[in-house]
Formats: sequence, structure tokens, C-alpha cells
Amino acid sequence: MRLNVDVKLDYALSGPSDILLQVGVARTPEQVVTDDHIDVGAGAHFATVPAEEMIGERIWLRRDDALICDYRATVDITRSAPEIGQLEATPVHLLPGDIVKYLMASRYCPSDEFQSFVAAEFGDSAGGARIAALAAWIESHFAYEPGSSNAQTTALDTFVQRRGICRDFAHVLVTLARAAAVPARVASVYSATVTPPDFHAVAQVYLADEWHLVDATGMARADEMAIIGVGRDAADIAFMTTYGAATLRTQSVSVTAVDG
Amino acid sequence: MRLNVDVKLDYALSGPSDILLQVGVARTPEQVVTDDHIDVGAGAHFATVPAEEMIGERIWLRRDDALICDYRATVDITRSAPEIGQLEATPVHLLPGDIVKYLMASRYCPSDEFQSFVAAEFGDSAGGARIAALAAWIESHFAYEPGSSNAQTTALDTFVQRRGICRDFAHVLVTLARAAAVPARVASVYSATVTPPDFHAVAQVYLADEWHLVDATGMARADEMAIIGVGRDAADIAFMTTYGAATLRTQSVSVTAVDG
Amino acid sequence: MRLNVDVKLDYALSGPSDILLQVGVARTPEQVVTDDHIDVGAGAHFATVPAEEMIGERIWLRRDDALICDYRATVDITRSAPEIGQLEATPVHLLPGDIVKYLMASRYCPSDEFQSFVAAEFGDSAGGARIAALAAWIESHFAYEPGSSNAQTTALDTFVQRRGICRDFAHVLVTLARAAAVPARVASVYSATVTPPDFHAVAQVYLADEWHLVDATGMARADEMAIIGVGRDAADIAFMTTYGAATLRTQSVSVTAVDG
Amino acid sequence: MRLNVDVKLDYALSGPSDILLQVGVARTPEQVVTDDHIDVGAGAHFATVPAEEMIGERIWLRRDDALICDYRATVDITRSAPEIGQLEATPVHLLPGDIVKYLMASRYCPSDEFQSFVAAEFGDSAGGARIAALAAWIESHFAYEPGSSNAQTTALDTFVQRRGICRDFAHVLVTLARAAAVPARVASVYSATVTPPDFHAVAQVYLADEWHLVDATGMARADEMAIIGVGRDAADIAFMTTYGAATLRTQSVSVTAVDG
Repeated sequence: MRLNVDVKLDYALSGPSDILLQVGVARTPEQVVTDDHIDVGAGAHFATVPAEEMIGERIWLRRDDALICDYRATVDITRSAPEIGQLEATPVHLLPGDIVKYLMASRYCPSDEFQSFVAAEFGDSAGGARIAALAAWIESHFAYEPGSSNAQTTALDTFVQRRGICRDFAHVLVTLARAAAVPARVASVYSATVTPPDFHAVAQVYLADEWHLVDATGMARADEMAIIGVGRDAADIAFMTTYGAATLRTQSVSVTAVDG
Repeated sequence: MRLNVDVKLDYALSGPSDILLQVGVARTPEQVVTDDHIDVGAGAHFATVPAEEMIGERIWLRRDDALICDYRATVDITRSAPEIGQLEATPVHLLPGDIVKYLMASRYCPSDEFQSFVAAEFGDSAGGARIAALAAWIESHFAYEPGSSNAQTTALDTFVQRRGICRDFAHVLVTLARAAAVPARVASVYSATVTPPDFHAVAQVYLADEWHLVDATGMARADEMAIIGVGRDAADIAFMTTYGAATLRTQSVSVTAVDG
Repeated sequence: MRLNVDVKLDYALSGPSDILLQVGVARTPEQVVTDDHIDVGAGAHFATVPAEEMIGERIWLRRDDALICDYRATVDITRSAPEIGQLEATPVHLLPGDIVKYLMASRYCPSDEFQSFVAAEFGDSAGGARIAALAAWIESHFAYEPGSSNAQTTALDTFVQRRGICRDFAHVLVTLARAAAVPARVASVYSATVTPPDFHAVAQVYLADEWHLVDATGMARADEMAIIGVGRDAADIAFMTTYGAATLRTQSVSVTAVDG
Repeated sequence: MRLNVDVKLDYALSGPSDILLQVGVARTPEQVVTDDHIDVGAGAHFATVPAEEMIGERIWLRRDDALICDYRATVDITRSAPEIGQLEATPVHLLPGDIVKYLMASRYCPSDEFQSFVAAEFGDSAGGARIAALAAWIESHFAYEPGSSNAQTTALDTFVQRRGICRDFAHVLVTLARAAAVPARVASVYSATVTPPDFHAVAQVYLADEWHLVDATGMARADEMAIIGVGRDAADIAFMTTYGAATLRTQSVSVTAVDG
């Protein structure tokens, strides 16, 4: 599948600010970027560094009064979308060392609080079957409601309130997966099937020795997403982090599926 | 300085459990382990993997009804203890890619909430001077009170309650450092100067292109600590994580400084 | 049913402190105190005021270095224990003015967060039947685990962790009842059927124009409890509140059912 | 001082809903309502009950698809505005029984967490002088920022983030007052000096045997406010509580000071 991505950001700044951007489609074997272009204008600094797990890039900028960013890319996605429910968990003692951290609680995913819930309510399945059951439970018991959450909302809040947006759905699935001893992280992605078009966030779970994308909102499939970056939770994959106050002027995200 | 470390853990388990241990002194250029020995008895599994940032090791065990661990080590510490207040911050756009994650909020360190506080109260200093001011402020305004916090206590709770133990002091300093755009993480350490003797936790801040240990409790100096492991916060550096219930029977940590 | 109550408190104080005690069995038509005696020793102050809703009494004391309290009472309980599931809810617009506050969220009962959960999972019943269903769900899905919660634990925490002690069970039921638009509060009680013997906390719900006691732990029945006091949640019914630090030396609560 | 109040609410409802309104100026000796009128249209129910402490009124309505409310009043305020800093605290053991509850922690005011902070930072003053110092500290250290908080924001959040709106300022002052053993509650008020015009919330503290209004935002004076209602915190004084979803269409609050 080929996706065309077109992103425009326009933010006013309250004064000279360091800005961290992460908007570009990552270059990985399963998603080949055939064309891309980013324009962030001129400024004091421009530096790029690899993002988490060397997947995607972060850009540091310093701007005085505004951040204007224009990004376009074309990407061919060849990732397969296996049946999650069929996959086996990797026994924890066989996990690679750099995967173990994705079992740990993080800012928005306090998985240490959910061990009893997961054992009691989802203890009769294991591995991929349990992850599939958790994702189906979230999709059917939680309402997708733009505006119902904010930057402080954790998976614990969402679990109680039973509503949220894509990042909240991803946080709940990641949290419950970790509580079930399955390594899990969050991925920011582009997908043509997300309504309204926007940056999208989904879970990624480690099963059968590989990472697999799972969208608990049910909006996007693994073979239709282009990954921007990954991390422990939304704190790691923000498309823009500013040190100083930023005010939205306009922002648009367009993702189109085209015949390859 | 030479330290002798002697740790004994004895926990009852409620049933067959996977256990993750991280108790061994890390082998790094600044702390040379001249002798060590760990005895965890026999069991279904024993696997070791590198811990966070390849500093130290994690051990996976599976045990049926008890976890008994006996660990001893001798380590020579050659780390220097520079004056933190004299060090300069690395500008954020010059940070290596794998350091950027230590600017982000984590489970116990919701640094995103503290930008206004740090700017208003500590905005007239920068870099190492600001970190030294933050550490001094914490040491003088917070009470060290064993029993006053628990496994759910975050830096936000501690900031309000003004009391805690070593991990709480470390969490507050890490949180405020990140809010000041200085990368910060937590280290678990052994130190002979900690009273009562126990696993100890301190902050590590990235200044002048290097990581530096800072103990906001004032109990230990950087050149007197042996690092076990590092991570974003206490969630990453627990000496023992069990999947299943564990009950303390006895535990002892002894650390002795000896003439090298 | 007749209960004999015998309570001894012995706390060390860090310095002169104001202390608020609420330990005496309340005098109400449904529980007749035939004999009682409280000894709190001598001190700078001793004042009693009516407690919440004029149910029971609060005692103010000022003590220099210790609080020693010896309380004994005999009480005859004539309260009936109707089948909660058979009672109808009072329509909210017919609630007396002084009952409305028990619909509101409180310190440990953030009922505003739970409207969606209650509507989705318990929306097919109403009134007393819904309260009975909620109490049964809590009793079967939550584990009674002394030591698993603390003075900061809210109903939201307990709802997620699925464990707690009597006050946590009461908080969850009160929270879910309020989210279902049924006024609910917490009562501190003595009961001979509580194991181990201790101060006990249960929910009180307003159905069919009256308050009814409900113990979500299943340990005590309404016709076997002697109410000490009521309030919005545990913040209102603590048996002891100190302004200054207090350290437990010994404490005992004995409640015995005797032939009337 | 005479105030003219004019409020219009227009909300869409998602279905038949019970609604609790509290918008009318309370009739008390210090604020004489010379004229008022409320129009809430026709519907299934209309019931009024006294609000908290018999100050003001709550109105229950049941509406099918919309809530439209038009309220107008003229009120003469004769309340004096004493110098808070000159007032003495009532010793806790001399507090009337029905005042004691305002020492307790509530939904948005977890005062139990702040005893150490208040003792350490404001321990050298007492009574009204301490309250005046707390109010001045809040006014100078917190930023008034519409949009920076939401319906879940507690005084603990605001204390950390150092920003909020009127209810957040009131919550912080109430919380710190209670931690200093001074009874405190929240009042909803109308005032002509609030910008932009809106429902306003302030603290009320119990000093010298009486309740006194204190606005930690510095926007309004006690002798210029018309009280609508009081309660433990914002949970008790919402101008509108709906059981069911409500969506704002338009809302206006106009308060004008006129020559008496």
C-alpha cells in the first residue's frame, strides 16, 4: 500500500524556544519512503538525532516567535498484518535485554496497578490470544470521544472513565499488556483510515519475538500504517515538544492511500 | 575507595513466579569489580540480560515457593566527584539521540507538570548551578522519613508532602531537572554512608556531556557509590520485580568501606 | 442484639497536639446505649461537639506527649435489615435538601469519573436492585487484603487495583452509588462479626426515603452494627485526627455479641 | 453596593436528563435581594431545596432536549470587608460542631497532604495573619490562565502547576487553610469586578467566630460579592450538574455595579 502524507504545522511562540519535532515517516524495511521533504524555515539551530530504538528521527529547532513546518512524504508499506490472536508470547526469561524495559510502568501507563484486574478478568487466555481479547474488550467498552481527555490523562483515568481518543486507547492496551507480562509500547503513525485525519497513536506488543501493531480503536490495520516513532508512551512520541509556550494557529494532517 | 557488599534476600512466593533481579554491582570503567558471587539456588530458569543502557545486569528466575538470594562483591571505585555547580549544561540541540529520552516524563517523574515552578523559582541560574540549587533546596526543605511513602508515591506527591525516602528525593530532583531541560535519570547504588544500610537511589544528571551522580538526601558522594543500574525512575531499577505475590521473610544489605 | 464494645488507644505524640476523637457509639432510636464510659485522662482541653448530621459526638483534646483513651459501651441494636434489592430509589427531585450533598464527589469518592462505567455495566437495573448488584459485584471482584491500601488510597485506586480493606470497599460502593444518582455516605461502625476485630467502615445508601447500611465486604449485617458516625467518606469519620505527629504504641478494639 | 445580575444559559441535552441548578443570589442578612426572576421554561419537574448550610437554593429540573435558563436579580450588599490579617483564629476545641467538617479534606482540596508544607513555610504566623500570608503568596506565585485546568484539576495539581482559574485559586487557599487547622470552604459568587464576567469562586475562612470571604485571585472584595452558595469545594457549588450529557450552546453572565 502506498500512502501520501502532507502535514502543515503553524504555531505562535511566546518567545525564543527550543522545539523538538517528530513528524517524519521512519525508514524501516517494512515501510519504504520513496520521497519526502520537510521545510521548517530558517533559525538559530537545526539538528537531527535518531529517535527511540533508532526508529525515526527527532529534529531540534530554536525559533523566536513562530514554528512553521511543512512536511510531505510518500511511503510504500509492505508490512503484513498477522492474526494477533494466533501468536505466542515470548517467555519473559527469553526476552532480549533491550525489550525488558517495555514491561515497566511509564508516565501514562501505570501497569503495576493492573496485575489483579488482568489476572482475574483475562487470566484464562495467554499470549496473543490474551492481547486480542484485551483489544476487543477495550474497543467494545470504551467510547471514542474527542475532547474527553487531555495531556495529563493516564491509562488509569481512561480505564475508569471509559472514554478517550486514540492515545488513550493505546495507553490502556499497553498498560494491560504489560500487566500481563507482555512487553508493550506506543507507536505514532499515519493512516489513511483515521477519521478525522490526524496524527494517530496505536499500541505495539512483543509477541513471537517480534513487535506487532495493534489499534484498540479498530480504526487502522497494521498493514495500512506508516510508523513515525515508538516509545514507552505518549511522552516519548509527541509530534512537537516545546520548552516555552506555543499557541496553535493552524494545523493539518492529510493521509491518502494511493494505488501503488 | 573499596566497598564490600553483602546482600541476602529471602522471600516467600504464593506460587510459581517469574522474578526479575537487579542486585549486582555494574562493571564500568569507574568501578572495578574485583570479586563477586551470586547464589540464587536451583530452579526452572536462570537467564541474564544486560540492564538499561548496558549498565549492570538483570537476572530472570522462575521459582516455585521461595526466592533466596545471596550476593557478595568487592568493588574499587575510582569515580571522581566534580563540583556539580561548576558544570555547564549541554544545549539540548547538541544532546546525543539516546540521551533525549531522559528529558521525558516517566512513571514517577511527571516533569511536564513542573515547568512553571522551576522557571519561577530557579530561573535565575542555569546548568549545573541550577541543579546544585535544586538539590540543596530539596535537602533543606524535605524530611527523610522511612515509612512515609510507598510504591505508588510519585515526585508530585513527594513535592506536596515534603517528605520521603531516598527514591522520593531522587524522583523530585530528576523531575525538576527534566523540567529545566537537563536530562536526568535514577541510579540504584550501594554506599557505605547510607543509614540504615539498604539499597540506595540517587539522581544522575547529564551535564557537560557526561552523567553525574547527585544524592539529594546528602547521604552519599559520587566517589563513594557503586552503581547497580540506571533507568528513567524507580520502575526501571527495582532490585526485585515479581510476577505473582512475594512476602518478605528477611532481607539484609551490608556495605562496608575498606582500605584499598 | 446486644454488643459490648471495649476500645483502648495508646499513641505517643511528638509534642503538644490538638486531637479529634470519634469513638463512641452514637445514640439513635435504633441503637440504645445502656452503658458507656470514656476515659481520656487529664489535659489542657476537653470539649465535645455533635458529629456530622448530629449522629455521634466528636471530642477535642489537647495533649502534650501521649493520647491514652479507654472506651467501653453496651448497646442494644433494634435496627432491621431490609432486603436492599427490594427498595426503590427516591427520585432526585424529591430528595430533601440536606441529602443532596451525598450525591456529590468527595475526597476519596470521585463519583464524577464513574458515570459511564455505571451506566454501561449496571444500567439495566435501578434503585435498590442496582445497589445490591453493585455490592455483590464488589464483594466478588475485590480482594480483602489488609496492608494493600493506605491513607491516600481513593475509590479510583481501589477500583483499578481490585483490593483493599473495609474503608476501600465502602468507598467504591459509595462512589458507584453516587454515580448512579443514589445518595451515599460512609458510616464507621462496631460489629462483632468483623475479623480481625477493628473499627469497621461500611456504606450507607439513601433508598425509599431512608438511610440503609450496606457492607460491601459481606462481613457485617445492618442489624448487627453499632454506628459511631457518618460522613461523606473516611475523611469525616476517622476515629482519631491529630494536628501533629502521633505514633501508635498499642491499640485494641473488642466487640462482643451477648445475649440481650 | 447594588449589583444587577443577568445570566442566560442555553445547553443541548442528549436525552431526558435530571438537572441541578444553583444560580440564584442567596438571601442573607448581608445581601438583600430586592428583585429577582428566574425562567427555566416548562418541563416534567421543578423542585427547589435549600442548598448547603441553608445558604441559597438548588433547583431540580427534568428536561428532554434542552436546558434554557434566564435569571435576573438586583441585590444590595452591606457586608463589611474586615482586614483578614487582623483576625484571630478560633481555637479548634471551641469550634461549633457544624464547622468542624470544614477542617476535613474534600474532593478538590486534599488538605491532609499539605500539613508539612504549611508548617514549614507559613509556621511563623497564625490565624488571620497566616491566611493573609497564604492568600498573598498564592496571588503572587500563581498565574491566572483560562483553559489551563479542567473539571478534574485538584488543589494538588494546581499547587504543582502554579496556574489555574478562580476555582483553582480558591481550592489552593482552602486546602492550605485547612492544613493550618482553619476551617475553610468555597463560595460561588457574582462580582462586577471579575474579568471576563463569569461565575466566580472564592474561599471562605472561619476566623474570629465568623465566615470571611477571601479572593486569592485578588479580583474581588468581600463587600462587592453576592454569594450564590457555599460548600466544601467546587463539587458542591456547580451552577449546573446534569445526569446525562449536556453541550453548551450559549452562556452569558453579566454583573453590573449600580449606584444604590
